[in-house]
Amino acid sequence: MSSGDIGLIGLAVMGQNLILNMNDKGFNVVAYNRTTSKVDHFLANEAKGTNIQGAHSIEELVSKLKRPRKIILLVKAGSAVDDFIQQLTPHLEKGDIIIDGGNSHYPDTIRRVKELEAKGFLFVGSGVSGGEEGARYGPSLMPGGSRDAWPAIRDIFQKTSAQVQGDPCADWMGESGAGHYVKMVHNGIEYGDMQLIAEAYDILKRGLGLPEAEIADIFEKWNKGVLDSFLIEITYNILRFNDDDGQPLVTKILDQAGQKGTGKWTAINALDAGTPVTLIGEAVFARTLSAFKAERSRASKVIAGPEKEVFRGDKKQFIDDLEQALYASKIISYTQGFMLMRETAKELDWHLNYAGIARIWRGGCIIKSVFLGDITSAYEKTPDLESLLFDGFFNKAVHKAQPGWRRVIAQAVLWGIPTPAFSTALAFFDGYRSEVLPANILQAQRDYFGAHTFRVLPGKENAKLKAGEDIHINWTGRGGNVSSSSYNA
Amino acid sequence: MSSGDIGLIGLAVMGQNLILNMNDKGFNVVAYNRTTSKVDHFLANEAKGTNIQGAHSIEELVSKLKRPRKIILLVKAGSAVDDFIQQLTPHLEKGDIIIDGGNSHYPDTIRRVKELEAKGFLFVGSGVSGGEEGARYGPSLMPGGSRDAWPAIRDIFQKTSAQVQGDPCADWMGESGAGHYVKMVHNGIEYGDMQLIAEAYDILKRGLGLPEAEIADIFEKWNKGVLDSFLIEITYNILRFNDDDGQPLVTKILDQAGQKGTGKWTAINALDAGTPVTLIGEAVFARTLSAFKAERSRASKVIAGPEKEVFRGDKKQFIDDLEQALYASKIISYTQGFMLMRETAKELDWHLNYAGIARIWRGGCIIKSVFLGDITSAYEKTPDLESLLFDGFFNKAVHKAQPGWRRVIAQAVLWGIPTPAFSTALAFFDGYRSEVLPANILQAQRDYFGAHTFRVLPGKENAKLKAGEDIHINWTGRGGNVSSSSYNA
Repeated sequence: MSSGDIGLIGLAVMGQNLILNMNDKGFNVVAYNRTTSKVDHFLANEAKGTNIQGAHSIEELVSKLKRPRKIILLVKAGSAVDDFIQQLTPHLEKGDIIIDGGNSHYPDTIRRVKELEAKGFLFVGSGVSGGEEGARYGPSLMPGGSRDAWPAIRDIFQKTSAQVQGDPCADWMGESGAGHYVKMVHNGIEYGDMQLIAEAYDILKRGLGLPEAEIADIFEKWNKGVLDSFLIEITYNILRFNDDDGQPLVTKILDQAGQKGTGKWTAINALDAGTPVTLIGEAVFARTLSAFKAERSRASKVIAGPEKEVFRGDKKQFIDDLEQALYASKIISYTQGFMLMRETAKELDWHLNYAGIARIWRGGCIIKSVFLGDITSAYEKTPDLESLLFDGFFNKAVHKAQPGWRRVIAQAVLWGIPTPAFSTALAFFDGYRSEVLPANILQAQRDYFGAHTFRVLPGKENAKLKAGEDIHINWTGRGGNVSSSSYNA
Repeated sequence: MSSGDIGLIGLAVMGQNLILNMNDKGFNVVAYNRTTSKVDHFLANEAKGTNIQGAHSIEELVSKLKRPRKIILLVKAGSAVDDFIQQLTPHLEKGDIIIDGGNSHYPDTIRRVKELEAKGFLFVGSGVSGGEEGARYGPSLMPGGSRDAWPAIRDIFQKTSAQVQGDPCADWMGESGAGHYVKMVHNGIEYGDMQLIAEAYDILKRGLGLPEAEIADIFEKWNKGVLDSFLIEITYNILRFNDDDGQPLVTKILDQAGQKGTGKWTAINALDAGTPVTLIGEAVFARTLSAFKAERSRASKVIAGPEKEVFRGDKKQFIDDLEQALYASKIISYTQGFMLMRETAKELDWHLNYAGIARIWRGGCIIKSVFLGDITSAYEKTPDLESLLFDGFFNKAVHKAQPGWRRVIAQAVLWGIPTPAFSTALAFFDGYRSEVLPANILQAQRDYFGAHTFRVLPGKENAKLKAGEDIHINWTGRGGNVSSSSYNA
C-alpha cells in the first residue's frame, strides 16, 4: 500500500517534469494536484506506462507514502504554500518532511522552517533551477532548512539532479532559508548574465552592424572558450532560429523584458545588506527600462544621439575585446553575488558552503558554465576566500581582460550604445581596487549640512582629529557645534 | 493661557532650530521634550529672551495651544512617532492636527493618516529639509496628508520656510503619504547629486592630478553657471577648509560614507515600482562600496589597474567637458526621480503637483539650485510633461552636453577612475532614446529555457506571431509545447 518514495503536489510543467525525472531514476512518485482532473490526465498521458501513482486527495497522497514521508510542493510561491502546509500537517507524523520546491522568498522559508520544526516536522526550502528542461533531465537542486531532512532526501535529490563530471548538482546549502536564499542569488546572477549577453549582442548589431547569423557564429566561438555556458549556447541557437520567411525570429520579438521578481529581490537584499551588487541592480533596471517601450519610442523621435560613426578599427580585435569585456563583467557579477552571500551569512549567522554552491551551479541550472568550475576550484582551494578577485586565477583573468574591457566600454559610450552592466562592472572593479575613494567629499558634505560627523583617515590623526572618534567641524563658523541626532539624510 | 500657535516635541538640533525660526517669524511656540531637563536648558540658553514657552508634560503642552491645536513631532522615525501619537490623542479634540516632521518612511505615514483620520484627527507627514541651517533660517517644507489641515498650518509653514524670489519653499504635496514620499525622493536625489560631485572631484584629483585649491576654484566657477547650487557651493568651501597645518581637511577625512536609509528607500521603491532610477541606485551602492574600506585596502594591493597615463589633451576643454558631464548626469537623475514620482502617483492614485515640488526644492533644502528653477518652468509650462527630456530646455541642454559627457566617461574608463553615476546616467540616456533595445534577446532566452512567452514586435506580425498574444516557441524541438506557469526566473 505505502510504496511511494516521495509525493509531489502541483502538476504544472515543472512538477510534471520533475516527477517523470524522479521516476526515470527509479523512485516511486505519488502525484497530486488540487484540480484532480489534472492527475488523471497526467497519468493517462505523460505518465502512461511509468510507475507513477496518482492521488485524488491529500489523505490519499499521504497514505501512499513510506515513512518518513517526503512531500515536495511545486506550487505558486506565497499563500498557496502555506495553504498546502496547513492541509498536509494534520495527516503527517513527527519527522515527516515537507519540501517547498517553488520560488519562495527566503524570509518565508525562514519562517516556515521555524513554524514546522516547532511542531516536530522537518521543512526544506529547495531551489530548483533549470526550467522545463532541467526539471525533466536533471535540475540543479539547492535544499536548505531542517538539517535532519538531508540524509532522508539526499539520495532522491542527488540522483534526480544533473551530474557534472560524476558530481551531483544537489547539495545541502545550509540552515533555515539558505536553500531559497541561494536560489534567489542564482536568479539574480542569471539576470546579470542575460543582460551582459544582451549588451554584447547590441554592440555587435548596432555597433559593428553585424547580422544575426554572424553574431551567432561569434557566440558559438566564445562558447568554446572561457564563456562556455548554457546561456551563450542558447543565444546562438536563438540567433539561428529563423521564422518561415527566413528572417531571424529574434528580430521579430518585442524588446520589452518581463520579470517575475527574484532579480528584484536580490537587488533589494543587496541594498538592505549594504553590499554593492551593482550588476544585478542594473540588470533589473535595464529590464524595467525596456518595459517603457511606448515612452522610449516617443523619446527616440525627439532625443538625438551622437553622430553614427562607421567603425574604423580592427574588427577582429574588437570582437576579442568584447569577449574579454563580457568575461571580466561576469567575473565581477559573481564576485558581487558571492560577496552578498558572505555578508548575508554573516548577518544571519548561517554557514554557507561556497565551494558547494559553485559546484552545484555547474550543471542543471540556467547559469551552468565552465566558469563555475573555476569558481568551485577557487573556493575549494581557499574555503574562506574573501573575494573571487583575490583568487589567483580570477585575478589574472581580470587583469588580462581589462584593456579590452575598457576599450569596448569607451567605444560603446562614444557610439551611444547603452552598456549599463558592462559599465557598472568596471566601475565596481575600479572602486573595489581603490584604496581611497572620493567618499571623503560625501562625509565632509554630510557633516557640513547635517552635522553627521566623520572619522579621520588612518595616518592623518592629530590632536583635533582623533582615531576612532566621530568628529564634527563647524565648517561655516555659524550655527552650533553639535552633532546631528535626529536629522537623516 | 492658551496662547501657543504651535507645539513642537523633540528638542534635538533640528527641533530647537525650527522653534527658533518659527519664533523669529512671529509665532508663539511651545516646546516639549521627553527628557524635560532639555526644555529648561533650551529656555535658559538658546531660547532666552524669546517668546518661546516650555512644557513639562504632554498635558501642559496641549493646554498651552490654541484650537485647533497644531503639534509638530521632530523625533526619531519609527516607534517614537507612534508612541507620541498615542500619548497625545487622549488630550486632543477632533480637528486637532498632528504633524510628523521627522524622516518617517512614507508607508508609515500612509498608515498614520488613515488611523488618525478614522479617529477624527488630522495628520500631516511633512518632509523638512535643509539640515541644521535650513531649520534655523528657512527649510524646505513638504507637507502632505489630511487635506483639511493645510489651511490651518499654511501660514506657519510658508512663513517659516525659505523664500525664493518671493515664493515660499512650502506647499501642499498631496494626499496620504505624499509629503514624506516627496521628501524621500528628495533625499534620494541628494544622494545622486553628492555622488556626481564626488566623481567630478575624483576625476580632477586622480585624473588631472589637481590639488584641492584648484579644484575648489573650478567648482566655484561652475557655481556661476548651470550647476549653481548649495551642494557645489559647500563643496568648494569644504575644499578650501584647511587644517591647522595648512593641509586641506578633506584629505584627512576617512573615505567611508555613512547613510541613514532614505536613499536606500528610494532605490527599493524604484525597484518595486519597476522604474529605472539607476543613478540613485548607483549612488547608494557607491556609499556601500566605500564602507568596505579594509577590504578595498587589501584589494588595492593585489589588483592592478591600467598603466597611469599623463593626460595629454586640452585640460581646459576637458574641465568644460566635465562640467557638461556633471550637468547632463544631473538632468538624468532628476528625470529619473520625477519618473519615479509619476509612476508611484499612478499606482497609488495620488495627485502630485510636479511644478510645486520643483518650486519648493529651489530653496531651503540640500538640493536647492538654479537648476530646480528650470524644472519648475518646465512643469509650469507643461503640467503633464511626460519626462524632463521631452522639455525643450532640457532636451537642448542634454544634446549640447553629450559630446563632452561621452568624452569624460571614455577617459575615466581608460584611466581606471570609477564613475558609476556618470556612467549609469549615460546608459539610461542611451537606453531611453533607443526605440529598440536588446531585450528581445532576454525574452527569447526566457522563452527558450522557461517557456515564459514573448510578444511580437509591432510591424512584424504574421499568422504565427499575432499581435497582443503571448507566444511560445518550441525552440529545441524537444520537450513540451506548453507555457510556463509555475517556474519563475
